[in-house]
Amino acid sequence: MAVYTHISAEDMSAFLTRYDHGHLVNFKGIAEGVENSNYMVETTDGRYILTIYEKRVNVDDLPFFMDLLDHLADRHCPVPRTIKDRQGQHIQELNDKTACLIEFLDGISLSKPNEKQAYSAGAALAQIHVASKDFDGQRANSMGLAGWEKMIQQCDGQWQKIPYGIQLAEHVREEYQWLKDNWPRNLPIGIIHADLFPDNVLMQGNNTSGMIDFYFSCVDISAYDLAIMHSAWCFDYENTTFRPTLSDALLSGYRSILPQSDAEIAAMPILARGSALRFTLSRAYDWINTPADALVTRKDPHEFGKRLNFYQNPDNHHIFS
Amino acid sequence: MAVYTHISAEDMSAFLTRYDHGHLVNFKGIAEGVENSNYMVETTDGRYILTIYEKRVNVDDLPFFMDLLDHLADRHCPVPRTIKDRQGQHIQELNDKTACLIEFLDGISLSKPNEKQAYSAGAALAQIHVASKDFDGQRANSMGLAGWEKMIQQCDGQWQKIPYGIQLAEHVREEYQWLKDNWPRNLPIGIIHADLFPDNVLMQGNNTSGMIDFYFSCVDISAYDLAIMHSAWCFDYENTTFRPTLSDALLSGYRSILPQSDAEIAAMPILARGSALRFTLSRAYDWINTPADALVTRKDPHEFGKRLNFYQNPDNHHIFS
Repeated sequence: MAVYTHISAEDMSAFLTRYDHGHLVNFKGIAEGVENSNYMVETTDGRYILTIYEKRVNVDDLPFFMDLLDHLADRHCPVPRTIKDRQGQHIQELNDKTACLIEFLDGISLSKPNEKQAYSAGAALAQIHVASKDFDGQRANSMGLAGWEKMIQQCDGQWQKIPYGIQLAEHVREEYQWLKDNWPRNLPIGIIHADLFPDNVLMQGNNTSGMIDFYFSCVDISAYDLAIMHSAWCFDYENTTFRPTLSDALLSGYRSILPQSDAEIAAMPILARGSALRFTLSRAYDWINTPADALVTRKDPHEFGKRLNFYQNPDNHHIFS
Repeated sequence: MAVYTHISAEDMSAFLTRYDHGHLVNFKGIAEGVENSNYMVETTDGRYILTIYEKRVNVDDLPFFMDLLDHLADRHCPVPRTIKDRQGQHIQELNDKTACLIEFLDGISLSKPNEKQAYSAGAALAQIHVASKDFDGQRANSMGLAGWEKMIQQCDGQWQKIPYGIQLAEHVREEYQWLKDNWPRNLPIGIIHADLFPDNVLMQGNNTSGMIDFYFSCVDISAYDLAIMHSAWCFDYENTTFRPTLSDALLSGYRSILPQSDAEIAAMPILARGSALRFTLSRAYDWINTPADALVTRKDPHEFGKRLNFYQNPDNHHIFS
């Protein structure tokens, strides 16, 4: 969480002349996003977020992400609209890097959302799924089954760098094999956000005022998106205890807008296992590749290993009904 | 430039209940200041900066800094006023750390100020000097003569970590000896900012809208503060070329509010040598103690070594007349 690319006030002022959105009043580098530099920019016209892409995000994917935001904003989803320059372009070069300006949305990201907030966020996810039905952009899920296998290979030989990493590796490899054989093949697909953790949702009171950080969005099983949210929202962070009331609220909120079919409901435990595996793996990879003294806080992969245990237990599968 | 202490939205909301300044609308960790965590906080009442003190700043000094800000703001200097809680306190505990909430000021920090901006900033510095004449807080300059000797000792044995560091060490040691013998003893003293680089000045157009980051402020020779500004403002950053028109503008701006005595003017070259030494030393110390791959950008100590050369040359001393 840092600003990697420093932009001078002079460069920022000059950059804003490409747009018809006022001139610079102030700007601050903000500590948001893991691998990009972000600035909050205020002009005489309004407030914006400028993102400069550093790594990880493949700039070839940016048209997909940006077009999706505009498509969803046009359909009244609470997502930031992209800001286009005088030539109608939303993807820019700034200091030899790729950059995009988007709307600033009010609201705060909660660490511990309550039931009403989980309901609202679930409904907002469904709103995205409905509004994107006629979006024709295509992007494969780089963090799907094939991505999991790749991450396992990248971690191999280094699991011992994680506390209890050898046991974790065993858990992960077995689960990957099982999921490869059991992953659902015939469920409805569509645009998914694929990373809608509480910190990617902005709230005003109990209402969702924004969904941000679409850099994992892609085309995949729609119900998998809800399973990702479930694994991210319905456990206490401190002790990874399942919170049934949050689970009920999240599922009810989603289904109030977009009912799930019996096949989707039946697949939810498998999809949630996939999500728990996906975040166990990405956290394991980040743990191995982040120095212990780096400014970026390493997130414990075992948190999602424990959620995986929860979803593996058939006694818990009733929660999705 | 990073946020070291993460504050959750829940903790931020709870923190704001100590104040009578509205409730949380949004907040962002901002990449400002080198060693503290800063958040831009918006409430239903206005915008604020929350600083959480991590290192370097001695919290025992905070009452001095905060009282000074309020003293100056009361006298219409463009500095952020501190925000007091319902009990009238401005120094707080938050997540076991010391924290202060201050006003947010509009304006942008320029990398390359122009002459009009240098004039305005020089006048603003003089305004601080005038307004603080009846401020009775006391704080010694930790970065004065005694501080320079300490930094030299801390760098000794490690100068070779800096490119051309051995030559730099020799330059620095000679200069320190000379300054110890020649440092002016009878010039007027008062409150000085002691670090008024362009990035600590906020501009709206050509007018100074804010002076920030008072964490080196102390009681010392008033003219030394102008010498610090001179060494920080009047050279091109890329090639450390002296910019006479910026120098004239800065000095004229200051003297338009607070004329300097003959003794002060005569001492300016020595004071500027002291400033150039001080920033050479602090940059050398930071260079030695910052890993090359750290997120904090290391600043080249030679930039100020070159400015020291400039001020050492008697042919240049006329610039202060």
